[in-house]
This record gives sequence, C-alpha cells and structure tokens, in this order.
Amino acid sequence: MNLSEKPKAVILLSGGLDSITALALARKQGFECHALSFDYGQRHNAELVAARRIAAHYGLIEHRIMQFGLGSIGGSALTDESIDVPEEAAEGIPVTYVPARNTVFLALALGWAEVLEAHDIFVGVNAVDFSGYPDCRPEYIKAFQTMANLATRVGVEGGVIRINAPLIQMSKAEIVRMGTELAVDYSMTVSCYAADSEGRGCRSCDACRLRSEGFQSAGIHDPTRYR
Amino acid sequence: MNLSEKPKAVILLSGGLDSITALALARKQGFECHALSFDYGQRHNAELVAARRIAAHYGLIEHRIMQFGLGSIGGSALTDESIDVPEEAAEGIPVTYVPARNTVFLALALGWAEVLEAHDIFVGVNAVDFSGYPDCRPEYIKAFQTMANLATRVGVEGGVIRINAPLIQMSKAEIVRMGTELAVDYSMTVSCYAADSEGRGCRSCDACRLRSEGFQSAGIHDPTRYR
Repeated sequence: MNLSEKPKAVILLSGGLDSITALALARKQGFECHALSFDYGQRHNAELVAARRIAAHYGLIEHRIMQFGLGSIGGSALTDESIDVPEEAAEGIPVTYVPARNTVFLALALGWAEVLEAHDIFVGVNAVDFSGYPDCRPEYIKAFQTMANLATRVGVEGGVIRINAPLIQMSKAEIVRMGTELAVDYSMTVSCYAADSEGRGCRSCDACRLRSEGFQSAGIHDPTRYR
Repeated sequence: MNLSEKPKAVILLSGGLDSITALALARKQGFECHALSFDYGQRHNAELVAARRIAAHYGLIEHRIMQFGLGSIGGSALTDESIDVPEEAAEGIPVTYVPARNTVFLALALGWAEVLEAHDIFVGVNAVDFSGYPDCRPEYIKAFQTMANLATRVGVEGGVIRINAPLIQMSKAEIVRMGTELAVDYSMTVSCYAADSEGRGCRSCDACRLRSEGFQSAGIHDPTRYR
C-alpha cells in the first residue's frame, strides 16, 4: 500500500499509557499518523522523552514537539515555575489541573490538521479512570468537534473534522487489554506526574495508582518501571 | 471604587484597530482588564510593539505576551516565510489565514481566565469587514463558548464563561465611530500584515485597505502612519 493513500491523522502523543494506545488504534485503523507533543513547561519532562521513543519505535512519518509558555499563566503546580518542588518529594507534589489544557492541545492539533489536510485527530482522554478533569468528558469532546467544524476551512468547505477519543468510555483495564492485543509495549510509556529523569514512576501519585490498578484488574503483567 | 471589586476580563490584544476598540469597550463596561498577546512567529512583529504601547497607555493591571511556535506548523503567509503576503484581495479564504488561530488564542485566554477567575473574555473579531476567515463568524464564537463552559472548572461548577465579541456584527466604519466616542487613539495601533519596524502600513494589503475604508466611510480622520 502506498503510504500517501492512507488518510492522515494527528495524534496527541503525551508519552503516557493512553496516548500510545490511541496511536496504536489509529494505526490499526489505517491512518498515516502525525504525532504532536507539547513542551509547555510541564515538570514531568520524562513524558517527552517517552513520546520521542514511541514515535521512533513506530517509525512515524512525523513527530513534532511544540513549545509554548502555558506555564506563564500559572495556576498549576505542574507548570508554575514559582513552586520549586524537589525531585525526591514525590508524595508532596500536588496533581493539579492545568487550566484549559486539552482545549489548548486540541486547538493546536486542529491547526496542524488543517495544514496537513487531515480530517482526524486522535486524543487519548478517558472519562472513567480519570482524575475528574472537566475536559476529559464526552460532552466536552463533542462540543470541541462542533466548534472545530465551524472554525476551519475544511469545515466551511463541506468537509468534516473528527475528534476521535476512542478510550473515553473505557476503564484503564480495558485500555490495557486492548493495547496489549495491539502489541503495545507499555514499558516505553511514562504516566507518573513525578517521574525521575529515567522515566521511572513514584508508585504513589494519582497517575501511578490508576495505571497500576489497570494492569492488575486486567490481569496483565505490569511492565512499569518504578524507582 | 476599589479595583478588586471590578469583575475581571481577559482581553485578546493584537495591537490592531479592532482589539483596542474591544479593550476600550470592556473598560467602559467596568471590567478590570487583563490583556493577552501572542508571539507566534508572526511576521508583523510591529503589532506586539503596538500591543505593549496600548497596554501601557491604558495602565492595564496586567499584559502578558505568550510565546509559542504556531509558525512551526506552517500553512499561512503570516507565519510561513515561504508564502508571500498578497497585495490584492482574492476570493475565498486567503493565504493569510493562520490555521485555527482564533481557536488557539481563545483556548489560551480561557486557561488564563480560569486562573484569574475571570468569567469574561473579549475578542475583537469581526464578521462584516473581515477577510473571510471562518473563525470570525458568530456561529463559531457561540460554539467556542459552549465548548468553553464544558471544558472548565467554572463551567462545571455552575458558573458561566462568556466569549464577548462585541464588534462581530459591526462594519469597520461603525467600529471606528464607536472607538472614537470611547476616545481611542488609533494612531497607536497597527493593522498592516506587512508593517515596517516602525509600525507603518503598506497601504495595499487586505488589512490596510479595510482599515482605510473604515475611516473614510466613517468620515473620521485616519491617523494611520504609512511608509
């Protein structure tokens, strides 16, 4: 099959468990995948290292890491430079909501999709085993899609932009099971909010806990590296 | 009046004619205005100089310039150095359209509004004398507002986020007339897509043409500086 005949998709690739599964699914569905990651001043930079590793592993046609200063608006311990958190103090790091994060990420993905003439964006948000963020819910994704079709050239000219959130109604266990069927190597991923520079998890933050319970409940060996 | 008793608003301040008018209107309506500008690799950097000048002139409580690499996704004559800015009007959506620009700007404004606990965002988009961009239409703004209320903590907790686009149904002449009543000094603003480093316009691009016609049709002296 000629690569250029595949429909294109932009995949939001954080480097975590959910986004690698969304990527594997998009590939399985026949998309030519263009991955987008963000360097927005997040403390857990190990995620970006993981995202690069994943993009290389799958031999993606393109992986862009876009930099912007989300940290400059503050409001989150994950991005606020005025809160100096030592790497060792994993238990004390608050797992905080980054204001409008998914809206900003999807907006930038939408811009790139327009340039690529891609009609599909994949995002690994999840409304079941999640941390209670409003921008992870199905009604939010649906409203973003409606807006996206009014915002863009392709929408105006009669095309359709689809925001694909295939994991949104799945439990972590279901995600892990599906990813395992898609031969995803979860040892490449980093979910921990306080991962060390090697990408090893802390075992105790929200993200580590949800991830670990997912493997356990799926009855699948957990390859996560902890420090 | 105590400053802190005023409701807060985030104003998207490009440094052009429309955004200064939206700012003047928000101030008139009693908002404490927090201005947000973007350095996204646009060619017309004179806009940012103008935005700084405007923020200083009005003594705004805060003006943030957020940097991000929208240029890195390409696709527009305003950010992509390989595409020339056209000097004449063309049919349809022009090459100066920056993919998903207003969506990205509003998303970042939304994030800052959440941090500030502001419920109002002002944006000077205009659907009458505009350049045919899909993300300047009333139905787009409405859809963004719906999405914003699902995306955010304040929306989920029963508050309301309003995307105020007070100029959207006005002609350039009406905008200039209203701004003049609000004592706006338009000589501070830059609209030209190809302004020189002093902020002087080219007279021939879409933006210069629309602006000049606005003053003419309003019967108001045009203080725009041309090179």
